[in-house]
Amino acid sequence: MSLVIVGSIGLDTIETPQGKVVDALGGSANYAAICASYFGPTYIVGVIGEDYPEAGIELLKTHNVNLDGLETKPGQTFRWSGKYRNWNQADTLSTELNVFADFSPQLPPSCKCCRSLLLANIHPRLQLQVLDQIESYKWVACDTMNYWIKLCPEELTEVIRRVDILFINEQEIRQYTGLESIYAAARSIIELGVTAVVVKRGEYGSVTILKNDLFYAPAYPVEQVKDPTGAGDCFAGAFMSYLATREELNKDALRNAVRFGSVLAALNVGSFSVQGIVNLDPHELQKKVHQLRNWA
Amino acid sequence: MSLVIVGSIGLDTIETPQGKVVDALGGSANYAAICASYFGPTYIVGVIGEDYPEAGIELLKTHNVNLDGLETKPGQTFRWSGKYRNWNQADTLSTELNVFADFSPQLPPSCKCCRSLLLANIHPRLQLQVLDQIESYKWVACDTMNYWIKLCPEELTEVIRRVDILFINEQEIRQYTGLESIYAAARSIIELGVTAVVVKRGEYGSVTILKNDLFYAPAYPVEQVKDPTGAGDCFAGAFMSYLATREELNKDALRNAVRFGSVLAALNVGSFSVQGIVNLDPHELQKKVHQLRNWA
Repeated sequence: MSLVIVGSIGLDTIETPQGKVVDALGGSANYAAICASYFGPTYIVGVIGEDYPEAGIELLKTHNVNLDGLETKPGQTFRWSGKYRNWNQADTLSTELNVFADFSPQLPPSCKCCRSLLLANIHPRLQLQVLDQIESYKWVACDTMNYWIKLCPEELTEVIRRVDILFINEQEIRQYTGLESIYAAARSIIELGVTAVVVKRGEYGSVTILKNDLFYAPAYPVEQVKDPTGAGDCFAGAFMSYLATREELNKDALRNAVRFGSVLAALNVGSFSVQGIVNLDPHELQKKVHQLRNWA
Repeated sequence: MSLVIVGSIGLDTIETPQGKVVDALGGSANYAAICASYFGPTYIVGVIGEDYPEAGIELLKTHNVNLDGLETKPGQTFRWSGKYRNWNQADTLSTELNVFADFSPQLPPSCKCCRSLLLANIHPRLQLQVLDQIESYKWVACDTMNYWIKLCPEELTEVIRRVDILFINEQEIRQYTGLESIYAAARSIIELGVTAVVVKRGEYGSVTILKNDLFYAPAYPVEQVKDPTGAGDCFAGAFMSYLATREELNKDALRNAVRFGSVLAALNVGSFSVQGIVNLDPHELQKKVHQLRNWA
């Protein structure tokens, strides 16, 4: 019933057509862990600098996220700055790795007995390092991005060979496989041993492709997007936390996981930084998942 | 159980990244009528010139399309030529109205007792002219395009006020309403009196918006698009022909109608001109609709 999330924790400066935030809470593990926290015990593994705001740590604590795997290192926290010209792709203005440059993820003893693992969007070499530390995990998933696909596709392939679930968007799956059809692309990834390839399509939802089956799921509708940063991380975090409660990786479990992921991703993009996903009412989340089931 | 389709019948010269055809069978009514023919009695109302190929007329006959409303006029058939740079939008290279310039649709007596009407994509003034001729139709739908939205939005609004169902794509609904959110846009159209707004999203399927409800539906997957011309017409033709068999315009009926529309649209785009939608096996269509139900 428990999920370990390994990824980045950072401070984001983001500009969108709807506004701007400076040094706001961000990072793949931050988004994923907050969303995961609504569905079961959540453990975060990452690194922050001495300048990381106390309010950011408090936020994780109030969401009952276990911080045994959170290291504080001398120096500054990882920082990213981006500007959205359209909602699907940010232009990176700057990336300051800071303490993240020497990040070497170590699972603390409390994470050894966890059930599921989400390798959020970080360097595939770090993802492999985590995979070498786990033993009896039930479900293991990884997320990635265009940057790693271009930089180190071989290491990414090594990660993919060792996970049950891959989260990837349409552009990325085409880039990674060199195939135009997302269906042919997903089949080629399933041949590497992955059980489910979840192809994310932004506002159009997702298609989850299995060996001999597939299913489509709509996105939860959003009237006004403000900041798409972290949508994929929220999706993956909620998805994996729900899945950690399930015994079988079947279509029914995956369908529900996708719905929980879609609701959290939608709530996230309606506000800047993590504002849309904090202090949520679990009953409200269930209601939205139920709506989404009726709308599909 | 019968459907009247009023629209264009023409000869298309089309270039896509997958090839080219010259003077191939086309026109909104042609595509829609062939697709409609698989689900119930279909009547076509349109005009052709003396040069229209006999094979094109034979094709409608072999699909049992009633031709009482098909006029042959002296002169050349309507011709359209377009080139696709991407799959969502064609650049029009030329439009020769020919006999279509003086088209004044007249419903023959045999169409007076029909059940449903599809006003396929033609000038809203002609659509209004048809609406003035009908009396007891059960379901009336209209399709349109960016060209008419720009040219004569007021006449289009008059049409929309008088139909039950509007077919429109994402760009068009934003253009017509001036609203960025397709949900807000659809609500503003429902206020005009429409029961269902079917917002088409190409390869991402559709969202059908009702007064107090909505549902998403995936597109039937296509591995290789060859020619997207007529996809919307096929969708509308199959949708309305299925709907003509139903008593209530409820969510269940609409969901099924969308599935039939999606399957025919997908078959259409896999081949040039009408090649993908002719001589189909109704059992195969049912099988694909069943697949689509399982995939959603």
